[in-house]
Amino acid sequence: MPLLDDARSAREASRKLAATPLAGRNAALLAIADALASNSEAIFAANRMDLADAASLPEPLAKRLRYDGHKLQESVAELRALAALPDPLGRALNSTRLADGLELYRVSCPLGVIGMVFESRPDALVQIAALCLKTGNAVLLKGGSEARRTNRALYDVVTRAGNVAPGWCALLESREDVHAMLRLDGYIDLLIPRGSGGFVKFIMDNTKIPVMGHAEGLCHVYVDRDADPDMAVSVVRDSKTQYPAVCNAAETLLIHKDVADRILPMIRAAMPDCEFRDDGWDTEYLDMIISVRTVSGLEEAIAHINRYGSGHTDAIVTSDPAAAARFMDGVDSAGVFWNASTRFADGYRYGLGAEVGVSTGKLHARGPVGMEGLTTYKYKLLGHGDTVGEFADGKRGFKHEPLDRECPL
Amino acid sequence: MPLLDDARSAREASRKLAATPLAGRNAALLAIADALASNSEAIFAANRMDLADAASLPEPLAKRLRYDGHKLQESVAELRALAALPDPLGRALNSTRLADGLELYRVSCPLGVIGMVFESRPDALVQIAALCLKTGNAVLLKGGSEARRTNRALYDVVTRAGNVAPGWCALLESREDVHAMLRLDGYIDLLIPRGSGGFVKFIMDNTKIPVMGHAEGLCHVYVDRDADPDMAVSVVRDSKTQYPAVCNAAETLLIHKDVADRILPMIRAAMPDCEFRDDGWDTEYLDMIISVRTVSGLEEAIAHINRYGSGHTDAIVTSDPAAAARFMDGVDSAGVFWNASTRFADGYRYGLGAEVGVSTGKLHARGPVGMEGLTTYKYKLLGHGDTVGEFADGKRGFKHEPLDRECPL
Repeated sequence: MPLLDDARSAREASRKLAATPLAGRNAALLAIADALASNSEAIFAANRMDLADAASLPEPLAKRLRYDGHKLQESVAELRALAALPDPLGRALNSTRLADGLELYRVSCPLGVIGMVFESRPDALVQIAALCLKTGNAVLLKGGSEARRTNRALYDVVTRAGNVAPGWCALLESREDVHAMLRLDGYIDLLIPRGSGGFVKFIMDNTKIPVMGHAEGLCHVYVDRDADPDMAVSVVRDSKTQYPAVCNAAETLLIHKDVADRILPMIRAAMPDCEFRDDGWDTEYLDMIISVRTVSGLEEAIAHINRYGSGHTDAIVTSDPAAAARFMDGVDSAGVFWNASTRFADGYRYGLGAEVGVSTGKLHARGPVGMEGLTTYKYKLLGHGDTVGEFADGKRGFKHEPLDRECPL
Repeated sequence: MPLLDDARSAREASRKLAATPLAGRNAALLAIADALASNSEAIFAANRMDLADAASLPEPLAKRLRYDGHKLQESVAELRALAALPDPLGRALNSTRLADGLELYRVSCPLGVIGMVFESRPDALVQIAALCLKTGNAVLLKGGSEARRTNRALYDVVTRAGNVAPGWCALLESREDVHAMLRLDGYIDLLIPRGSGGFVKFIMDNTKIPVMGHAEGLCHVYVDRDADPDMAVSVVRDSKTQYPAVCNAAETLLIHKDVADRILPMIRAAMPDCEFRDDGWDTEYLDMIISVRTVSGLEEAIAHINRYGSGHTDAIVTSDPAAAARFMDGVDSAGVFWNASTRFADGYRYGLGAEVGVSTGKLHARGPVGMEGLTTYKYKLLGHGDTVGEFADGKRGFKHEPLDRECPL
């Protein structure tokens, strides 16, 4: 089975990549950036053929499929920015002197093999391959069939220029491969799906491999009794309308009953293009539509969010710090915001350097995930022939002193 | 379905627990400690009945089932030690000023609902309930049927004395419940199985809920060409014989061909009660048996470990720092040790304060896991009406300055 061969090669390559120093990984990133620029015509030609075949696709899908000079410049800029970031590997996250001459270091290292499944956008191929390379991971990529020529062209450039270990990056091209890939637990350490909510949910429901991502972004803004009305208007407007098609846009407005009569008309007036609905609390519109519910107070707002929300990002507008604190503790979401737009929930805005994805799961990584999400850690213990028997016999004792330094090897 | 009711109540309780201050959680831990001591006779009586029924059980199982004065004292001491530990919740793991007046805090918080499935040992019930309580998690417990009276007696004490939120701790008692529990993804955030390798593997293979644990501990010691012979003897002996029945004991000895003739006889002589075998590289003996393989060098040792190991803990004995560094980078295990016994791989020895379990998975937590493994984080963003629009328009810019302080609310 070719896929299994790819997975085995990727595992093998991941061991080499894990041992490739930062300079080698960065040089590969820069070589890919240069190769993208010098092979742009072949890539654009492939993309034009994909676009021609996709003439019947709805416009938003066709737009995502487009890979032109602008997209290429973005890819090149991302690769160069990534090469300039510090090494995510080999950092001591913790260090402890267990006893004299016995030092324990918890050191960041790659996860191993990442499986990436994405719809349409071919730029995702370059981005995720680059993130995996920087973090020392091998990667199996499966893109949408409508972008197959563009994906193949980009893949050829990435692997020819980023020649760090044979098989570190594999491209799966058949529909059967994606189903087979979902069964490759034991070969793939983490799956990252990118695409529509239904697509991500399908992946999550049909694999035993850990999945990092979000099927839904059902974000709320709650306007509390003590909200500053103008602030409420601008936070709700920004959360809903600044870019409605994305997962961190608000879908539901909750408003305290004592201020609804006063503030709701202000909000409606500020968002004339937005449709307000009295139901649909479990609907992710991704459009200029917002559900509205008047609540009796903070606790009802929290209960509503915990029931209908997706655990992505939820905001409160209030002048009362105690209400803000209660909201942020009570709402079980990756992001809990006080007097700020839900649209800030994003890896770049958070300052993570690069965004791998947004996770609504609670294990491993939560919320916007940076390169850290593609790493794990191992414990390195450095001794001088130390045995547990000496400690069990009482000849030696544990000290557990923090060392606060990098691992010497 | 009563189990579903339990799970819903646990979810509800988890929200209350997450908002229970440290003092309340610690008071409950101390109350449970006191109640265990004052209800010891009822607990021992229940345990005597379980033991009487278990007369036909093999001795090691019966031993694990015993809950006597010694075990009770251990439980009480663990509860008091746990109450003395600092709060695992509400700590800012990271803090960044995104822009003036816009501060982001990554704050530790509970996972939510933990599912714990354990065989025999009733002391595990007290320990895991206490760890969940300290970390603000609700817990569904399912113990072995052979300990059902002891579990019920302990559970009654734990929930009557540790009365933090109705339903925060539920006891499942039927065999059907465990199967039903494995299907409760959406209600349970993390499953922790404790028991034999086969038992843990069964859990891992039959649920979509994330599982933290290890089905196997197949640990290696590799004696390199440059190993100090006496050190090799004492590290191998301690790794194999100090406590052979546990997951961090060594199962395979790899030895460099150039020193095998000299050092292997010394090792054999130092472990007269141990059986040496030339095969069985995928066998976890948990007994006084060790597989031996002579390898051509460091790379073959690394390849052997990555192929046959369980990703638990592996050690190299060498005087060559370059060989040690290569081994620790090349071996894809949670613990990679230089000149130290594999038996050090343990939460208490690592100084984690309390051990939740040992994970051979790479996601979330790896190796010996402390209370941190029962927590996740959320992002708290504190603003003053900030909108993304202002930044998109270029009216404001991001600063991303580290703040290095706790979240003010």
